[in-house]
Amino acid sequence: MVKIVIDMMGGDNGYAITIEAVKNFLKQHDDCEIIAVGDEKVLEPIKDIVKIIPSQSILPMECGVMQAMRQKDSSCYKAISAVNEEKADGVLSAGSTGAFLSLATLINKKIPGVERPALISPFPTRIPGKSVVLLDVGATSDNSPEDLYQFAKMGEAYYKAAYGEEAKNINLVCNGTEEGKGNDLTKKANVLLKQNPHYTGYIEARHVLDGKCDVCVFDGFTGNVFLKGVEGVAKMMGGMMKEAFTASFSSKMGYLLAKKSFKPMIKLMDYKRVGGALLIGVNTVAVKAHGNSDAYSFGNALTLTYTLAKNKMVDQIKQNL
Amino acid sequence: MVKIVIDMMGGDNGYAITIEAVKNFLKQHDDCEIIAVGDEKVLEPIKDIVKIIPSQSILPMECGVMQAMRQKDSSCYKAISAVNEEKADGVLSAGSTGAFLSLATLINKKIPGVERPALISPFPTRIPGKSVVLLDVGATSDNSPEDLYQFAKMGEAYYKAAYGEEAKNINLVCNGTEEGKGNDLTKKANVLLKQNPHYTGYIEARHVLDGKCDVCVFDGFTGNVFLKGVEGVAKMMGGMMKEAFTASFSSKMGYLLAKKSFKPMIKLMDYKRVGGALLIGVNTVAVKAHGNSDAYSFGNALTLTYTLAKNKMVDQIKQNL
Repeated sequence: MVKIVIDMMGGDNGYAITIEAVKNFLKQHDDCEIIAVGDEKVLEPIKDIVKIIPSQSILPMECGVMQAMRQKDSSCYKAISAVNEEKADGVLSAGSTGAFLSLATLINKKIPGVERPALISPFPTRIPGKSVVLLDVGATSDNSPEDLYQFAKMGEAYYKAAYGEEAKNINLVCNGTEEGKGNDLTKKANVLLKQNPHYTGYIEARHVLDGKCDVCVFDGFTGNVFLKGVEGVAKMMGGMMKEAFTASFSSKMGYLLAKKSFKPMIKLMDYKRVGGALLIGVNTVAVKAHGNSDAYSFGNALTLTYTLAKNKMVDQIKQNL
Repeated sequence: MVKIVIDMMGGDNGYAITIEAVKNFLKQHDDCEIIAVGDEKVLEPIKDIVKIIPSQSILPMECGVMQAMRQKDSSCYKAISAVNEEKADGVLSAGSTGAFLSLATLINKKIPGVERPALISPFPTRIPGKSVVLLDVGATSDNSPEDLYQFAKMGEAYYKAAYGEEAKNINLVCNGTEEGKGNDLTKKANVLLKQNPHYTGYIEARHVLDGKCDVCVFDGFTGNVFLKGVEGVAKMMGGMMKEAFTASFSSKMGYLLAKKSFKPMIKLMDYKRVGGALLIGVNTVAVKAHGNSDAYSFGNALTLTYTLAKNKMVDQIKQNL
């Protein structure tokens, strides 16, 4: 039995979408116990299929660490605490990223030997069905070469737990692929990473989404800039495509004719499929769904939490380090 | 009279495209003298409209700094040297970026007071006709807060010389916009940059191309990852759109109907319009066209060189610092 705690209240769309996601998920999974944290009244409709832990408040999206720690009756705080108390295997929230990361690190604690937990984000590549795992995309801001070495190890464990196979290509993002390229940090990390048999060297940012790389390592600052930059451009281009297809009667007709051929692209660009990012390096599977998740994407984040918990990702990391 | 030196041989497509670009350019500009560096025989067709400086070899694209310095008869070395000898206002090459950057720094020398020259790249935004200026995108790998402060100053001078108006929004790319966000470098640079009246704070990578930012400052490593990441995704999505529109008879018909509405997007995504990047901080206008430039994009890079030289960008930087 896999046991997962869910912060039912934290996202922009509140309990309406989390309740729907939980109902759908439990229809398909009979080996999972859900502990739902939230307002008892609104969770009434699912009281027979989940265990409810009542919470009294919701952390705001722009919540600071101090507030997150103090507001002990919030759904996020109570959910993360419940992981330890209930001996659960994972926790999921669509609330404030900052609060979730700090609370999971402070309450669930780091895995022994882990220096810095990292935020990991699976990302679609140009090869249909193939994802690349990016880390750190923003849990940390300043890293040591040893951090990057550990990120690779943790990314490997994630890859295996999520996709059921070994990562064959672990790369470090750099400003070039020749020896001698890189900043001070990547040059030192590159030396350390060569101890990892699945490390295949530097990769340039333009090739990260080509589909050859399995685990892509960045320091947390650069990874955050990469992820947000790429998401920004994809969103901009997606928006422009939509505008173009709705600009005139003629282009609308064009869309009807081309629609079918655009399906693979639209599917690939659908970030809702990915569901969420994960804080890796703490003693649980801590998944952060997008703040603006709908029931579909929250459901995907829940499936991710379940899969990683079932495949014992945390144990894999312990073995890997 | 504006005097520009051109390495006619360096790009992937050699003199065929540079000759065509020079011919077209000179038809439209009678206040510009071109000094063409290359194989005398192949430059024969333009010997009446330019001054020719013969060169005997071409640096390979993957050329190291040592080779670039030693191979003194190369078109790149001779072009950059000619800037000093001929008192030219600018230099343009489509050859090896590494060689061009090193030679321009070593031979043309840094502007007094400049710590680190930077590679600057203008980039289209979602607002048609509005570009954002990104720097450093890869001339340096490890920067000090003072470097970032100077990058902002140099970016301002570029913006004014290229677009004829003051940069109103200078931003520093960061992993968040709240005070307290950032890595050690950006936190310190943020304090320094507040001395600049046009500095309006941190920007997240996802908003860089929104069209509000005029000059966007990165350390050279992060800027390189951002630029290449964004180019990679844009290229991937462009390729997928093309595939979708050519996938079937129906989608081809759809393209014919929607084509007109897609024009603004296709124009925006056309990186050939931008022409090239610039090494800023040396004693000349040093423009590096894309290695795979065609006559059109090389012509745009030439126009950029001419515009910046005519508007005395180098003098502006001297005043700014």
